[in-house]
Amino acid sequence: MPHDNAVTPLDGFHHWFATRAEATHYLVEEAPLDRLEGWRVDPGTGNLVHRTGRFYSVEGLAVDVREGAGRSWSQPIIVQPEIGILGLLVKKFDGVPHLLMQAKMEPGNINTLQLSPTVQATRSNYTGVHKGNPVPYLAYFTEPGRGRPLADALQSEQGSWFLGKRNRNMVVETTEDVPELEGFRWLSLAEVHALLHLDNVINMDSRSVLAACPAEPAGAAPGDVTALVSRFTAIKAARSVSRRRIPLKDVPHWHRTADRIVHDEGRFFSVLGVDVQAGDREVPRWSQPLLAPAGRGVIAMVARRRGDELRVLLRANTEAGTFDGAELGPTVRCAPANYQDGVLPEPAFLDYVLSAPGDRVLFDAVHSEEGGRFHHAENRYLVVEADDDFPYDAPDGYLWATPGEMTELVRHSHYLNVEARCLLACLHTLR
Amino acid sequence: MPHDNAVTPLDGFHHWFATRAEATHYLVEEAPLDRLEGWRVDPGTGNLVHRTGRFYSVEGLAVDVREGAGRSWSQPIIVQPEIGILGLLVKKFDGVPHLLMQAKMEPGNINTLQLSPTVQATRSNYTGVHKGNPVPYLAYFTEPGRGRPLADALQSEQGSWFLGKRNRNMVVETTEDVPELEGFRWLSLAEVHALLHLDNVINMDSRSVLAACPAEPAGAAPGDVTALVSRFTAIKAARSVSRRRIPLKDVPHWHRTADRIVHDEGRFFSVLGVDVQAGDREVPRWSQPLLAPAGRGVIAMVARRRGDELRVLLRANTEAGTFDGAELGPTVRCAPANYQDGVLPEPAFLDYVLSAPGDRVLFDAVHSEEGGRFHHAENRYLVVEADDDFPYDAPDGYLWATPGEMTELVRHSHYLNVEARCLLACLHTLR
Repeated sequence: MPHDNAVTPLDGFHHWFATRAEATHYLVEEAPLDRLEGWRVDPGTGNLVHRTGRFYSVEGLAVDVREGAGRSWSQPIIVQPEIGILGLLVKKFDGVPHLLMQAKMEPGNINTLQLSPTVQATRSNYTGVHKGNPVPYLAYFTEPGRGRPLADALQSEQGSWFLGKRNRNMVVETTEDVPELEGFRWLSLAEVHALLHLDNVINMDSRSVLAACPAEPAGAAPGDVTALVSRFTAIKAARSVSRRRIPLKDVPHWHRTADRIVHDEGRFFSVLGVDVQAGDREVPRWSQPLLAPAGRGVIAMVARRRGDELRVLLRANTEAGTFDGAELGPTVRCAPANYQDGVLPEPAFLDYVLSAPGDRVLFDAVHSEEGGRFHHAENRYLVVEADDDFPYDAPDGYLWATPGEMTELVRHSHYLNVEARCLLACLHTLR
Repeated sequence: MPHDNAVTPLDGFHHWFATRAEATHYLVEEAPLDRLEGWRVDPGTGNLVHRTGRFYSVEGLAVDVREGAGRSWSQPIIVQPEIGILGLLVKKFDGVPHLLMQAKMEPGNINTLQLSPTVQATRSNYTGVHKGNPVPYLAYFTEPGRGRPLADALQSEQGSWFLGKRNRNMVVETTEDVPELEGFRWLSLAEVHALLHLDNVINMDSRSVLAACPAEPAGAAPGDVTALVSRFTAIKAARSVSRRRIPLKDVPHWHRTADRIVHDEGRFFSVLGVDVQAGDREVPRWSQPLLAPAGRGVIAMVARRRGDELRVLLRANTEAGTFDGAELGPTVRCAPANYQDGVLPEPAFLDYVLSAPGDRVLFDAVHSEEGGRFHHAENRYLVVEADDDFPYDAPDGYLWATPGEMTELVRHSHYLNVEARCLLACLHTLR
């Protein structure tokens, strides 16, 4: 049963969420990488691996992008070939779509608890490698006939940090009676959209799946995205990307201390270890490495109105681990701290979005990236309306798209990268 | 201007095609691999490479598929990271869609000339690496605004023979006056569909692009493929595939003679060399390796009618070089010669499609795979109607789809593999 927030919107939610936080016992402590329980550094490669060979590893990657002048670099990267499930259960109460959300602790979260989708499980989770408890509500996403899939596609995660990592993003509608287990709560789509305007409440996995949940469902006749797909295909066809896994110890400009894996100049990110104790997780105690970005990032789109229609500027992004040669990302995605010393050239449009006056800021909230792999990885999510001086034609490697077109693309794999999907979820909250 | 075949259908075409064959001067001679002009065997790896490092190479690949019992193997494979253009120009004459087809010689063709799309060019072709003549009609596919894209997506080619090879498959409609250059001819879609019933006339690249050209255009409101995409996503999510390029000399069960690269038991394929002289190609004389399959293959779908609707059984295929973890292929795809000695288990449904009585054979023609890379690579393309005993539920790893659903999927990358696309082009010719 949904909860009545009609009189004082979201008060009921906030009370429940605070109660969940009190009921959640957890302890996250940083631990040196070379003494991380269950993990070891392979002496031959320097790669950081689990002693079972499962879960994930931190290795090296050499990337070569041929387009124009071309560019090549090497970096550490998380290798996690398993495909997990991010599943959102939807049910209409009195005709109003509600989503079954979970208050979930992740060790990398800056604020411990955030709202995850109904199911957020690696393959190890739900096939029992963790030897933990069964995953609640999993059957709605794995047993045919338990619900109607509204969206179901493999989608990639952070290409800068993961090598070809993908999760199965599912939205499934059920008409069954579904009990609200402890830690889970039915929220209306409007409530979830309102919560997206608050900092660090809706977690990355939720945002990724919410990209496929517009306020007004597109209906059975999606728009024609042929012209948009054609422009994107032209960019991909001109860009040849090759990737080669290399030993982590052979990655130049990075080194390992007893505690962490770090960039020589402190840029980009480091890899650290944590020991975790948590009362309400399927495994009560474990240790794991996390990737800690260098400072809060910016994930921003420049938008332009034409009549009622909003269009946003997307960039065809090729990052180290992007599954396909390129995926469509936001206009800007970076951590400004990497550019403050003036050594690296500042990304295009960064200054433009950060210096926009308040009346042109359509969306502005801080959200966290996946706390199961990333440590305090916050990004400021911005949608900024262009002024009259902003170029009308998309620059090389960019294209304009409407939220409706993006919602059609997100039904398929590898069009929108995770940052674009997360910001699309935010766009759905705008009128 | 289109040509009038109204009285005697296709007579005009056949006369023109015979004239083209007479006007085409060519000579293809097999040449030992170790004396192939411009090519060399790398002494460290045994890989067969061009002396410039361009075009393509023959290397080794180790594949590991984790699903159920899992399977692992190694094999030689063609590595060609470049993305070429397969472009079909469409124009309506008196409201009837016509396609600009080219009579094109390829060195591996069993019958020299076949009909290619308007543009069939590797990136080396059209960016001038070959130092050959400019590619006719290229501008319609590379200059925005010269035509309206009806379909434009990267599509993969033979996963058994290529590592992640993709071409940009484009259908572009123009309203300009387009001259019919020598070797090119406007054919109506109905004529091309009729030619698909003849052996070895419509080449692989044409068939691949024709998959996006149904007899009745789908219009602006494509059907909802969410349920189908969901079933396919479930299969992909359960299948983890890892690939590793290895030196060709380290591939077990394969060896090199002075002439060829061959399997120890003569199975699967060999790699041979040819010297080519051709009067009408952009480069008049060259040498190259070709992959020669072990005997004529079978590419077949089992179909089932329900009222007016046809549904075909697709298999989620993971081959060595499949770009994504799996793509949807035909019910059966194999070379029966590999199984005649009884050492390897016969593929599912092979006997079923080959032993079907004539009244259940809906389509039957022999077509060639890409003559620029493959030597005399013929396949029998079959669509066979299921009898009442055929299982109604799709077996594990298979799914049923209508040609309309497949036509919607082919607008996007990596749903239908090249064999499924080629057979979809044939399905479009059925009423």
